[in-house]
Order: sequence, then structure tokens, then C-alpha cells
Amino acid sequence: MRNWILPEYISDVLPAEARQIESMRRRMLDQFALYGYEQVEPPLVEYVESLLTQQDAALDLKTFKLVDELSGRQMGLRADITPQVARIDSHILNRQGVARLCYTGSVLCTRPDGLLSTRQPRQIGAEIYGSASLAADVEIIELMFASLAQAGVKDITLEVGHIGLFNAIADAAGWQGEVRQTAFSALKQKDVPTLKTLSAQLNPELTQGLLALASNYGDFTVLAQARRQLPNLPAITDALEGLSQLHAALSARGIAVRFDLAELPGSYYHTGLVFNAYAKGFTNAVARGGRYDSVGEKFGRSRPATGFSIDLRGLTAVPFAGPKAGILAPQGDDPELLSAIRGLRAQGEIVIVDLGVVQSEVHVDRTLQQNAGVWQVISL
Amino acid sequence: MRNWILPEYISDVLPAEARQIESMRRRMLDQFALYGYEQVEPPLVEYVESLLTQQDAALDLKTFKLVDELSGRQMGLRADITPQVARIDSHILNRQGVARLCYTGSVLCTRPDGLLSTRQPRQIGAEIYGSASLAADVEIIELMFASLAQAGVKDITLEVGHIGLFNAIADAAGWQGEVRQTAFSALKQKDVPTLKTLSAQLNPELTQGLLALASNYGDFTVLAQARRQLPNLPAITDALEGLSQLHAALSARGIAVRFDLAELPGSYYHTGLVFNAYAKGFTNAVARGGRYDSVGEKFGRSRPATGFSIDLRGLTAVPFAGPKAGILAPQGDDPELLSAIRGLRAQGEIVIVDLGVVQSEVHVDRTLQQNAGVWQVISL
Repeated sequence: MRNWILPEYISDVLPAEARQIESMRRRMLDQFALYGYEQVEPPLVEYVESLLTQQDAALDLKTFKLVDELSGRQMGLRADITPQVARIDSHILNRQGVARLCYTGSVLCTRPDGLLSTRQPRQIGAEIYGSASLAADVEIIELMFASLAQAGVKDITLEVGHIGLFNAIADAAGWQGEVRQTAFSALKQKDVPTLKTLSAQLNPELTQGLLALASNYGDFTVLAQARRQLPNLPAITDALEGLSQLHAALSARGIAVRFDLAELPGSYYHTGLVFNAYAKGFTNAVARGGRYDSVGEKFGRSRPATGFSIDLRGLTAVPFAGPKAGILAPQGDDPELLSAIRGLRAQGEIVIVDLGVVQSEVHVDRTLQQNAGVWQVISL
Repeated sequence: MRNWILPEYISDVLPAEARQIESMRRRMLDQFALYGYEQVEPPLVEYVESLLTQQDAALDLKTFKLVDELSGRQMGLRADITPQVARIDSHILNRQGVARLCYTGSVLCTRPDGLLSTRQPRQIGAEIYGSASLAADVEIIELMFASLAQAGVKDITLEVGHIGLFNAIADAAGWQGEVRQTAFSALKQKDVPTLKTLSAQLNPELTQGLLALASNYGDFTVLAQARRQLPNLPAITDALEGLSQLHAALSARGIAVRFDLAELPGSYYHTGLVFNAYAKGFTNAVARGGRYDSVGEKFGRSRPATGFSIDLRGLTAVPFAGPKAGILAPQGDDPELLSAIRGLRAQGEIVIVDLGVVQSEVHVDRTLQQNAGVWQVISL
């Protein structure tokens, strides 16, 4: 057994990547703070019942289980932070009105999402509780763009969908349980043959509507087309009107939207708007979000909620500068040497005391030397 | 079942505490960087064999176990980060010469250390690999003090011991296994009656030496006393000489030392110098460290090592300022309003868009209002 071998899809973050993640993390948290978001840090483990806020087989399978020796009860290692933040909003903070919360931390999944994934993503995200308004969704998307910009991610495309469109058709079709789940998955994968088979028994309006969801992708003209092709149901009219208003508000902020009516959430708790951000050079979405009203219901308080999350480890393909070069100083107890080193560090200089050969990401380009009794920094 | 209940000794970090921890974390990591330390982030879970680098029943009991579905093997949730950093130094970075590494992250323990403890401490620490020199220990202690100062911890007392003193006497006594462990624990607790019983069969020199370890506590005069009272063994002479040099080097840096010859490490891997920092207003040590040479042996590379660690959650008793006050702005898509908000945030102002009532740690003391067509910040 080689003890240094890590489990599959688990890896160390080494200095160059750690510096980049730390920098992105700080810049994003600072951005969140400028928008008035407050950081919370829920724990890594909780009782399983708290982590799995609703019947969700997928999240259950993703969650590592362990036994709490103190209580004998089963705990889970969180695979998602949003249900924890919902618990804090619902029960711990219990604030009236709007709460803007943000978080960052690792989650762990029993299996990777894909071949390029890690089982320990470094999530960072921001959420608004207590506002059902479009203005809240707009703020969240604006903040998501501002955060990605802070991390140096460029050429971002926003893809927007609305789970209310599918739900309205599935409700009208009377679909529940397995057939609804099959149709959901088929639409998500734009699997038109399956959608045709499933909707064979439905009235032509619903069939046409379902197929229209699978084929409508593009700029805001998609919305006009959807108004013609989708059944005239109140939930559909509301959803399309919401998307249209979102388009206008984001345009005013210089954010272009592409609509994908087959865009459906990966998380069980989303209830309305869903969106993904894609960027040049990245295979997977760089950020995901949407609305998840009532997520806190299980904790005793059903509130509107909207938010996004980003996996920081997924962004390290962005070019990032190396560390500043440092100064090599001799070791010793001479008060003037110690004072010179302290002064340089107080000015923000990296000073490495000579304890022997150093191989490091930190390049040394100067030394501290004594000339005529005075300690001076000399270029190498 | 109330779903919001957390397991015992597990808690949320709420906004005020999160801000303080984030601030301390950044200031300490920045301090580490100025000394040339590079950050690494080992994963939260590894195979159990990697986490438990040596036979260590205490660490084993502290470590949560879980099953890796991908391999069928047992993994552990880390209860300590140092063995992971040793693995990275030994096998992953595999650098020649000196490596200065630092880390921060959560660890999880099956049981709390005491009634006031959390089972999820937020560790932060710095380590030097590849230097057996006293200068390395001095740098680590100096950096520990500088880091605590960055966190606002004042009136710090450094207590220093050396496990080589006990080991030399236990070796000379021929103590192994259980009797050695019992003597170790008795000395740690300064349990003189047990030490007397255990050493009844030994020659008077060793008995006197063991009891001297339990009673020698104080400033550097302790070292002279110890030279008289401890047996004349090479390992003891070396250890006392090392402590004496440490005292001189730390004095040159303005760091006062108290010696406690019964100071023994809580971690199985310490091999020489051990130290704890105590501060006014804190019951437990605010930082701990020492030497743990050969910690990487199991990973194929035995190197000298010295370092310290701090639990950030343990430092939040230090007074900490509230967040800056913010500006309340109306919602809307008016380009001049959006531009005014962007400009204020670019200047570092917190701007909260009015989505309704907000209760927050962020106090709003100004509003953004349009006067004669111009957006202006008005004091409340």
C-alpha cells in the first residue's frame, strides 16, 4: 500500500492553484460585501435529515454518511451548502424582510459529476431570502457576473430557462411520479423522440408546447415565438412575462441573455427561473443559479429565495500571475538585521531568511546585505 | 424531529463571527506569505492509512470513518492537517532543501477536546520542512507571535518544553509501552505521587530527574537548575543547550519565554521542542507547536520539521469592529442610477439595493437619492 495515494477524484491543491483560489475567493467575497451580503459558515457535517431537506434521491446518493458517536445518529457530509444556508435563514437568523447571505467552503460528493470533476468542489455563492421580486433575480445575476469578472473569467454567456414552463405543461398533462421525471430528463437532454412518445396521448396543444420547449433556443425573439407555440396557461404567461422583464433589466446592465426553454435545474429545489453561465475555454458551466422559493419550508419558514454558486476549482484555467519576487536575508540575531527585515515586511516585501537551499514558487531576486555597517537590499 | 438541530459541539458560524474569522484568516495568510510560506490545501478526506501516519490510537479514535464507494476502501475525515502537509512535502512537492508551507481549513473530530471545544476547529498553521536548525524553530515562533498579533491577540505568554528530556530519562529507565505512556501522562499532569511510585525502582539520579521535570517551571533560570538536577545524559545536555540558545534568539526578538519542563505534546508525532502560547482572556492555548522530525517517514521521506497551528474559532473572543456602514439605493434600471451605484462600489462603498426591509449587521447610514436629476449620497 502506497500511503501517499489519494482516493480517485480527490486531490491536493498545491501552491500555484492555492494562491489563485485564495485570490479569487477574496475578490468574490469582497464583491459580495459591497452588495451588502453577509457571510455565514455552516458546518461540514449535520444530521442527515437536515442536509436532505426534501425527498431527493440524487442528493441522498451524493451524500457521504457517518455515525455520530455522541448521539448514535447518522450524520452526513454536506454535498450542497444551499440547504444549510436556508436552515440558517429560516431558523437561526430568522430575520424579517430581506436577508442577503453568502458562503464559501468545500462540499464532498460520493461520486464525481463527470470525468473532469472533483469530489471536493470549493463552492462559493450568494443568496437572497425574502424577496420574490424580479429585482432580486437581477441583482443575483449582476453579482454573479461581477464575481466571475473578479476571477478574470471573460466572454461569459448567460443561458436562462424557467422550470415553470415545463411544470405548467406537466401539470396540464396530469403527469406525476415516474412519467413526469422521465419527461423532465428527456427535455433536459432535448431528447425529442422520447418527448414525442410520452406526449402521444396528450392533446395537440400540449404536445406542440412540449416540443417547442425542446427546440426554442436563442436571443429574446425566442420569447415571442414561445408565446405563439406554448399553450395559453396562466403559469406559462407569467413565466414568459418574467423572462421578458428579466431580459430588459439585464440589457440595461449590459448583460446579454440567451434563452433555452429546455434549461432545467440539476438541483431538486429550484422552482422558477434557472440560469447557467458559460465562458470561453470552459467545458462546464462556470456558475449556476436560479430561484428556489420555499427551500426553507422544512425548517419551519417558507420564504422566496434566489441565488447562484460557483466552484472555485473549476475556474483555475484562467491565467494567473505568479507570486511577487522576494528578498533573501541572512539568519542571525543582530538587532539591526532583525529591524531591517521587519521594516521590509511592513512595506509588503517578501523576506525569506536563509535556512539553506529553497526551491519555491516564490522567486528571490534580491538579497539583504550589510555594506559599511548598513543593511541594504541588493539586486541579484 | 426538529430539522434545524445541529449535532453536539457542531455549530454555524454566523455573520459577525464569520467576518472576524475571515479577517484573521487573511491577515495571517498574508503574514505567512511575507515570510515566504506557500499555501497548500490538502483534501478533507483521504484513505485512513494516509491520515494516520503512525500507530496512534488517540488520532484514530478522533477520526471519523466513511466508506469510499469508488474503491470500497475506508476513508477518514481529517482530524489533523499536519500529516497531510507532511505527505505533500514528502511525496508531492518533493523539493530539495527547505520547504515553507502553510495551510488553513477545517478539521473534524469525533469528540470535542473539552467542554468549550468545537468538533470542527478552523485550523491555520505554518511549517518548515528540511531544516533541523534552531533558526527554523525561532522563525516559526516569531511567525506564530506575528500571526497572533495580526489577529489582535495581546499579552501572549510562550511556554516551552522539550520532549527529549522525558525521553532520555524514560530510555535510561528502560521504560517502553504502557509504563512509558503512564509516566508520560503523569508528567504532563504534574502528578507527582504517580511519578514517585513509577520511579521507586530506578536509581536515585533518574528518580530525582523525573521529579525535577515535574517541578521546574519559570524563566531561564530553570535551565541552570535543570542542569544541576537532571541526569548527565548527552540527550539531556543537548536539549538544555537547545533551549538555552532558543531563549537567547527569542530575547533578541523581544519574545519572553517561560520554561515548563513538564510541557509535553498532545500530538504523537512531536520529537523535540514543544511550545504553547497562552493569552490573557483565553482558557486554552491560543497556538501550539513544536518539532516533529521524521513525520514524513511513512510517505517515503524522513525530513526535519517544525511548525505551529492555531484554531481560528478559538480566537473570536478578541474584540472586533463591526462592518462599515452602507448606502441604501433604490431599485431600477435607470442608466445613471446604475452608473452611480457602480461608481460607489468601485470606491469601496457598500451599496444595498432596496428590495424591502433589511435587518442586517450592515448598518445603513446614507441613501442614494436623485436631486435635480443628479444621483447624490445623502446622510440619514
